[in-house]
Amino acid sequence: MDSLARILRPESVAVIGASRDVDRISGRPVHLLRQHGFGGRIYPVNPKYDEIEGLRAYPRIADVPEPVDLAIVVTPARAVVDVVRQCAEAGVRAALVLSSGFGEAGEDGRVLEEELRGIRRTSAMRILGPNSEGFFNVTAGIPAGFSPAMDYERGLTVARRGPVGVVAQSGGMGFAVFNRGLDLGLGFSQVISTGNEVDLTLVDYLEHLVADPDTRIILAFVEGLRQAPRLKAVAEAAHAAEKPLIVAKVGRTEAGRRAARSHTGSLVGRDVVYEAAFRQWGVLRADDLDDLLDWAMFFSINRRPVHGRRVAVLTASGGGGVWLSDWLVASGLEVPELEPAVRERLGTFVPPYGSTVNPVDLTAQAASGGGLERALEVLGQSERVDAVAMIMPLAPEERTVARGPGLKAALGAHHKPVVNFSYRLPTPRAAAVMEELGIPSFPSPARTARALAAAARWHTWRPAAGVSPAADAPTLPPGPWTEAVVKAALGRAGIPVTREILARSADEAVAAAEALGYPVAVKVQSSALAHKSDIGGVRLRLQDAEAVRRAWTAVMEAAAKARPDVPLDGVLVQEMVPDGVEVIVGTTVDPDFGPVVMVGLGGVFAEALADVAVRVAPVDAATAREMLGGLRGRALLEGARGRPAADVEALAAVVARISAVAAAWSDTVAQLDLNPVMVHPRGQGAVVVDAWAVPTEKGA
Amino acid sequence: MDSLARILRPESVAVIGASRDVDRISGRPVHLLRQHGFGGRIYPVNPKYDEIEGLRAYPRIADVPEPVDLAIVVTPARAVVDVVRQCAEAGVRAALVLSSGFGEAGEDGRVLEEELRGIRRTSAMRILGPNSEGFFNVTAGIPAGFSPAMDYERGLTVARRGPVGVVAQSGGMGFAVFNRGLDLGLGFSQVISTGNEVDLTLVDYLEHLVADPDTRIILAFVEGLRQAPRLKAVAEAAHAAEKPLIVAKVGRTEAGRRAARSHTGSLVGRDVVYEAAFRQWGVLRADDLDDLLDWAMFFSINRRPVHGRRVAVLTASGGGGVWLSDWLVASGLEVPELEPAVRERLGTFVPPYGSTVNPVDLTAQAASGGGLERALEVLGQSERVDAVAMIMPLAPEERTVARGPGLKAALGAHHKPVVNFSYRLPTPRAAAVMEELGIPSFPSPARTARALAAAARWHTWRPAAGVSPAADAPTLPPGPWTEAVVKAALGRAGIPVTREILARSADEAVAAAEALGYPVAVKVQSSALAHKSDIGGVRLRLQDAEAVRRAWTAVMEAAAKARPDVPLDGVLVQEMVPDGVEVIVGTTVDPDFGPVVMVGLGGVFAEALADVAVRVAPVDAATAREMLGGLRGRALLEGARGRPAADVEALAAVVARISAVAAAWSDTVAQLDLNPVMVHPRGQGAVVVDAWAVPTEKGA
Repeated sequence: MDSLARILRPESVAVIGASRDVDRISGRPVHLLRQHGFGGRIYPVNPKYDEIEGLRAYPRIADVPEPVDLAIVVTPARAVVDVVRQCAEAGVRAALVLSSGFGEAGEDGRVLEEELRGIRRTSAMRILGPNSEGFFNVTAGIPAGFSPAMDYERGLTVARRGPVGVVAQSGGMGFAVFNRGLDLGLGFSQVISTGNEVDLTLVDYLEHLVADPDTRIILAFVEGLRQAPRLKAVAEAAHAAEKPLIVAKVGRTEAGRRAARSHTGSLVGRDVVYEAAFRQWGVLRADDLDDLLDWAMFFSINRRPVHGRRVAVLTASGGGGVWLSDWLVASGLEVPELEPAVRERLGTFVPPYGSTVNPVDLTAQAASGGGLERALEVLGQSERVDAVAMIMPLAPEERTVARGPGLKAALGAHHKPVVNFSYRLPTPRAAAVMEELGIPSFPSPARTARALAAAARWHTWRPAAGVSPAADAPTLPPGPWTEAVVKAALGRAGIPVTREILARSADEAVAAAEALGYPVAVKVQSSALAHKSDIGGVRLRLQDAEAVRRAWTAVMEAAAKARPDVPLDGVLVQEMVPDGVEVIVGTTVDPDFGPVVMVGLGGVFAEALADVAVRVAPVDAATAREMLGGLRGRALLEGARGRPAADVEALAAVVARISAVAAAWSDTVAQLDLNPVMVHPRGQGAVVVDAWAVPTEKGA
Repeated sequence: MDSLARILRPESVAVIGASRDVDRISGRPVHLLRQHGFGGRIYPVNPKYDEIEGLRAYPRIADVPEPVDLAIVVTPARAVVDVVRQCAEAGVRAALVLSSGFGEAGEDGRVLEEELRGIRRTSAMRILGPNSEGFFNVTAGIPAGFSPAMDYERGLTVARRGPVGVVAQSGGMGFAVFNRGLDLGLGFSQVISTGNEVDLTLVDYLEHLVADPDTRIILAFVEGLRQAPRLKAVAEAAHAAEKPLIVAKVGRTEAGRRAARSHTGSLVGRDVVYEAAFRQWGVLRADDLDDLLDWAMFFSINRRPVHGRRVAVLTASGGGGVWLSDWLVASGLEVPELEPAVRERLGTFVPPYGSTVNPVDLTAQAASGGGLERALEVLGQSERVDAVAMIMPLAPEERTVARGPGLKAALGAHHKPVVNFSYRLPTPRAAAVMEELGIPSFPSPARTARALAAAARWHTWRPAAGVSPAADAPTLPPGPWTEAVVKAALGRAGIPVTREILARSADEAVAAAEALGYPVAVKVQSSALAHKSDIGGVRLRLQDAEAVRRAWTAVMEAAAKARPDVPLDGVLVQEMVPDGVEVIVGTTVDPDFGPVVMVGLGGVFAEALADVAVRVAPVDAATAREMLGGLRGRALLEGARGRPAADVEALAAVVARISAVAAAWSDTVAQLDLNPVMVHPRGQGAVVVDAWAVPTEKGA
């Protein structure tokens, strides 16, 4: 049993700051525990009372006759630190702080939070919250908190037990998911409001739910993760335990606004990193409340894995079939043509004005009288089909009920998952028939398709090969750095860079050019000049010594004029590489996820389109290839009309290696922009042409 | 009263092929008319019966004692043509053919449809269908057809009358919309299944519903429009009548597959044209069944116009507010900061741990006890707000009911529309309270945001200035054409093209180059060579006579080698224009909508990204500018880092003029590809550098 299990299923609970007024938050915890018939010990703590709801009240937690499993704290914020310290001293296992007025309320609150963290550091007691709405252990029938969602006197009708565990960084939304899920017929194991997470974080609760035998499906509402990198292991454990992990992460557009374009790395908005991490780690991201609940419903009802993306559509309405097919394809699934043998079997009962291609249009006539059931059986046996999506209205109720046995027989003939789109809303009895059959049903083509697509993503996800930060990454000198320094380090790290020589005088520049061979580029070097070419500090395609001499003078003067304040390191004389596809590779250190790598098409594309793929670093070459395949402009790499295909393998290797080096450097290098990386035709490699790095505070 | 009104509200109905078996389609129409207490005359027609359901049956329509308003035909397909002809001869106003087995069943059926069209051409009788499920005049209580959706014995409970009219090209989906709408509480005026539309089309029915006084909101399910261009006038009439027109158009992905990339014009998939037309003409496109019904619900309940895109979010849950804001912005709306005066008013009752910025987070404490109502009043009076989106759970029911008067007072303080997201599903009574208040409520943040955004699009849509095909477009000679011929015609039409001279010998080419001035381009000319440069038929940047001579030989030999079968017209000697932003402008003649214009960024962008904007032609310059603004790569036109902004005004003028010329040419020119059009810096114009045209059968 994991340590959280005991906290979330306490046998003894103290409520510190408890009052007799059930209309106030302070009066609710005791009232709710009793309302739900909590079987353990309850100790109200408040020096103002002798008893509350017939229970003896204690002046302080130290007076309570046992070290309780859980202390629920509802005192005003200013008293919380003392109370929590007393809890720790009294041997309380965990303190759940419901009080508000902490980090969310400003600087004073942040100071209080820091004090709570201090208590946690010096004791074994865990802290939940503060500013939490509490939790509801639905399986055990234990409400710890004040949410009206767990109050039979304020709206709760049945606290239906079931496989769905919920963790939320917004108590309001967490209990909203619970509320609405109950309305829809879902059953729950746990609902947890994390609050401000001074100790236990959302990731801790997720880890608990993965281990919790009563939870089979995990929903999370996320605003921003503490301990984000730990999500990887938790998500992998969820896959190993076959417990779908579905997350609604809000703040998409705010993150989008933050994205700036002046640096390649800053194209990475933070939400983009969440999106990347969820995809990499096999976490399902649900954008809407409907999706979150639909997908929980799908996994709750359907127990058959969706092994691939090929879907047979089965309909009695041609128009509905097109609509559903549109949405299946838009959701990332396929609606392939069926094999001749299957079409032949269908043809024995589908009339000529129907269709056996896919969508299979039975027509209304053939759908009734057993046709739907026969088609379901046949489609489930197709070798070209991973799942069947059908359109069967669930009203009138009697018809759904009457169809149960026939559908059951058809489902028994194969192991493929089946999902249904019903444009009519089912009665509870009709819904129960479908649930019993194991067929999730949704009221719109979009929601049907998205639920099936999410399940296919879940079941076909495979972890990437393990990659570690580059243990052999060379050490950088203290920053800031010039291009020459960064590229020398990259070169030592095994990343192909242009051949180049640093020159401190015009003569040295000419000598360097002669050594490299013409044509060359000349680029002024200063650790303070991020955009050399913008100030005229770069000259390209120099063909002879005279040109190099002129370039020396020109770039040194241009730099001195543009930025008289910064010292110059001379110029970098660089081989000119043949034209190819220009690509940007960048890395940043995300405040939540740590090192992140991005790749995008370069030149005007990067400026105009922000078409970049992002992953948490490091990545292996296979993931790097997948990143390149996800670019809108990937056709450029594949060889658009008349152009040779680019060396994607070499580029993927460069991206992977850079990601590993950046991960190793993340203490000292905050941002790395390789722009451009020139990708040559297949077999001819890729080379870093320009590089810029921004040091962290520690790396400067 | 429009002519369809009488047909859809008949006073006398014959049912031809009527039978006594109510389980068969032939037995349903009479049965349903009687079930609904139809007040007019019913005449069953079938030589096999003397009476049906107590009504006298007639052997033939000619025997019926009056020329009926509507004849419903349910005979087998092979008998339909004769029956319909007899109806026409008997003076029937309209024949509704429910029978299947026409165009949808293959070639024989298409022949039958042609015969029906022949009857229509020679008589005044209108034909509905064939292969229709009929119509249900809900306002008048007249079911004409066989759908179980209008059968009280097969699932219909209450045929709620109301403002929503439905027309569908899939009877199944049309009645599905009706069914589901009833489940959700919508009221309907008409439900019409168009069938195969040999005469009356979906557009005809839309036109009727725009005129119909009982209809205030129009929903359509579209697979592909006949008479698509007429939709423009109908949509404009719908706007004039303030009747939102909401269309679900399926077949998106099939159309996507059809898009090919080898020609610029063929980047136009047909669904893209529907999307363009809907946007141009102010038709709301709903992608999902939920949206279709949600939006109908929005317009049914809310009567306040949404005059702009600025939304105030009002919530008691911080997390919910972020979620809803994300979706509002993702749906094209704005969530702006509120003005200080409004924030100050809110600050008098919003606690410090809430927020008055926008989203306005009241916190749970302030939301109860009148805070929500006060905030709603204050926000409605903000000058920075066009609408308020709030989050108020509609359960428990009593709370919603209790809030009614307070909300009503708050709404009375201003004229801004208000929409609500409730994560709890309302009881019918709670829903009625909101409906009475005029506040539409939706169960997810995405659906709430999309409904409000659709309403904003509806209310802020303005028709483009009227544009006609270019009456002064020059006549083209019979095709196929060379680049020289097409560009000469474009030049005569007032479109800027490169200066160029056709040369039939090397000497002529040199003379042409001398006349134009160096540098020049040389391009082989043949009306059979669409891709000159792919076969080596183009030489650029020629600096002198010798280079032109060599180019003459090279391009003529290359063309002769690549395509020995085609005659060559010599070469076009052309000025070299300065570099600029390359753009593609293309036109096609869409089978549904007629002339269509598209514009996209050129060069590698067009190949790699298919980033194009499409509109039905002709367009005015303002619309052309809007097209350019809709390109993902528009930053290239605006002047990406270090580049000057392009002459967007000149380009818009070119696009507009080309669209007008192409519209004038649509009989003879099937496709026009101007690639590239070179756009120079602001004030310096845009010029067509290369052009290709494909003739229609008539134009060849």
